[in-house]
Amino acid sequence: MTKIAVLGAGSWGTALAMVLSENGHHVNIWGNMPERIEEINQKHTNEHYLPGVKLAESIIGYTDLEEALKDVSFILLVVPTSAIRSVTKQINALLDDKQKPIIIHASKGLEQVSHKRISVIIDEEMAVEKHSGIVVLSGPSHAEEVAKRDITTITAASSSEIASQAVQRIFSNNYFRVYTNSDVVGVELGAALKNIIAVGAGALVGLGYGDNAKAALITRGLAEISRLGMAFGADPLTFIGLSGVGDLIVTATSVHSRNWRAGNLIGKGLPLEEILENMGMVVEGVATTKAAYELAQEKGIDMPITAAIYRVLFENARVDEVVEELMLRDRKAEHSTSKMTAEEE
Amino acid sequence: MTKIAVLGAGSWGTALAMVLSENGHHVNIWGNMPERIEEINQKHTNEHYLPGVKLAESIIGYTDLEEALKDVSFILLVVPTSAIRSVTKQINALLDDKQKPIIIHASKGLEQVSHKRISVIIDEEMAVEKHSGIVVLSGPSHAEEVAKRDITTITAASSSEIASQAVQRIFSNNYFRVYTNSDVVGVELGAALKNIIAVGAGALVGLGYGDNAKAALITRGLAEISRLGMAFGADPLTFIGLSGVGDLIVTATSVHSRNWRAGNLIGKGLPLEEILENMGMVVEGVATTKAAYELAQEKGIDMPITAAIYRVLFENARVDEVVEELMLRDRKAEHSTSKMTAEEE
Repeated sequence: MTKIAVLGAGSWGTALAMVLSENGHHVNIWGNMPERIEEINQKHTNEHYLPGVKLAESIIGYTDLEEALKDVSFILLVVPTSAIRSVTKQINALLDDKQKPIIIHASKGLEQVSHKRISVIIDEEMAVEKHSGIVVLSGPSHAEEVAKRDITTITAASSSEIASQAVQRIFSNNYFRVYTNSDVVGVELGAALKNIIAVGAGALVGLGYGDNAKAALITRGLAEISRLGMAFGADPLTFIGLSGVGDLIVTATSVHSRNWRAGNLIGKGLPLEEILENMGMVVEGVATTKAAYELAQEKGIDMPITAAIYRVLFENARVDEVVEELMLRDRKAEHSTSKMTAEEE
Repeated sequence: MTKIAVLGAGSWGTALAMVLSENGHHVNIWGNMPERIEEINQKHTNEHYLPGVKLAESIIGYTDLEEALKDVSFILLVVPTSAIRSVTKQINALLDDKQKPIIIHASKGLEQVSHKRISVIIDEEMAVEKHSGIVVLSGPSHAEEVAKRDITTITAASSSEIASQAVQRIFSNNYFRVYTNSDVVGVELGAALKNIIAVGAGALVGLGYGDNAKAALITRGLAEISRLGMAFGADPLTFIGLSGVGDLIVTATSVHSRNWRAGNLIGKGLPLEEILENMGMVVEGVATTKAAYELAQEKGIDMPITAAIYRVLFENARVDEVVEELMLRDRKAEHSTSKMTAEEE
């Protein structure tokens, strides 16, 4: 029996803990809210994040990180992007160089200011002799559906094939399918950046636009995500895979997504502060928009959708004006950035 | 004022006629059902195909093809794939070699038995001296939304840049955005093959599966469409463009799509004959599944989703069994077809 620590008791951490426990592994779940951990241990539920779902009694909750990490051979980080660095520091301090777990993360974002990917942060904060590889887990996966054992496919990416195959092995079962991939940069950037497009898609629907406009946004959004990713050495194929277009479709066409819901309220004219206050969950897409906007500026990459959403979120631009501006740019050829001679424009 | 003939008075033909007429062009619309044409001319509506929509009085309906083609400089074909060859033959017989219109088509399918693309059929049946280029128009576009002037983006593809730019010019306005593209093969194959995935996505929802499974199907479906397209010389970029993933998203995630609706009823267990009878519209995805299945066999391309849908549609396979088989194939790396050593399988 493999022993695994899941760090983060939100929707996704809890759903992944369920999959691991169903696969016969021993699962410790760690969270920083004592009442939630007590609920997991006493009632075997996590009502705030996965309402109506019964957890296995073998999933043991901890608020003490040292206890949660004891003897585990895998550590799965599912904490908000902003907490990754500090949690990894704590893990590094608690591990000796004999345990050597594989570190998995399933968080989707970029670090503020530094714009670093999550595996880069982990690599910086963990001594290399204390782990057996870093793996990112990402793909089209609403936690609520995984908890219902609905069929889900997901990518496990690592520079170490041994590590990604080990992660594939512990998670795979007849409703949860894991595909390995070696393109960590592409998987992490796709995971982070799709939340920007999800905010935009929600805003379009909030403004009253239909499926044609939404498909245009997703398609052109995928193109700009891929452009930025390729500038950082990502494989373009990754962006048409599960962690790219797959996750983008789920996030940008589904009311389950908190990024979509935040965008939807923006489209309806609510102020950002009020939305974030009322959601009661982290909306990664907001911080990621800022990071991606700054990265695109640095690298000189054309990301008109990201720039438009940035202006709405951080510069008080009116969302309807921004959409009009964005959708009505000059007539072009589909795969070039050069303008056409458009005498009727 | 440009004179344009729209051949086909279904939902899409009528919506495109509205766009052209709003752009100030003179539009003749031709159809083979006298009562429909009379309704267009008398009441300026097409209730069966675009309920609740008022058409411009300047759109003139014809049942006589010769009259409809008189003096037009563009002919837009929006008839079912199965009618393309016979209608093109008639056009060829009626045109002299002075009129030289640009031929546009907006049909999505492959010819039965021959498996030919629509522009290939047109090219075979039209004398080269009788036209000024063949252009395919395709992208994420529900007719109902175009009729409401919702923002829509679309691709105009041709081997002649002059022809695709001319088509861009006559259609473009502030809600209908046309991008040019030179990859006719990729645009036509994407347009035809996405209907197969739409049938599959509808079936998944009919069976009760959720967003995670649907995103997996769309992603893996896009991969197999691209594989077949590339075997025929298409540019892989086209499949992540408007006529590829864009159209696929609209068709596979929206209840507007008749292919999705047919698939949905299949998922709910209704027999194919009954579904096709009750829809009262052509479901291109059914015929295209057969054509693509045969093409993939010929070329030796792995298209597991197409093959699965083929077995349901034409070999009476049970849809739930086929889905299970499809989703639970051996564990793999994401971008390869080689199996992994999966000792726990």
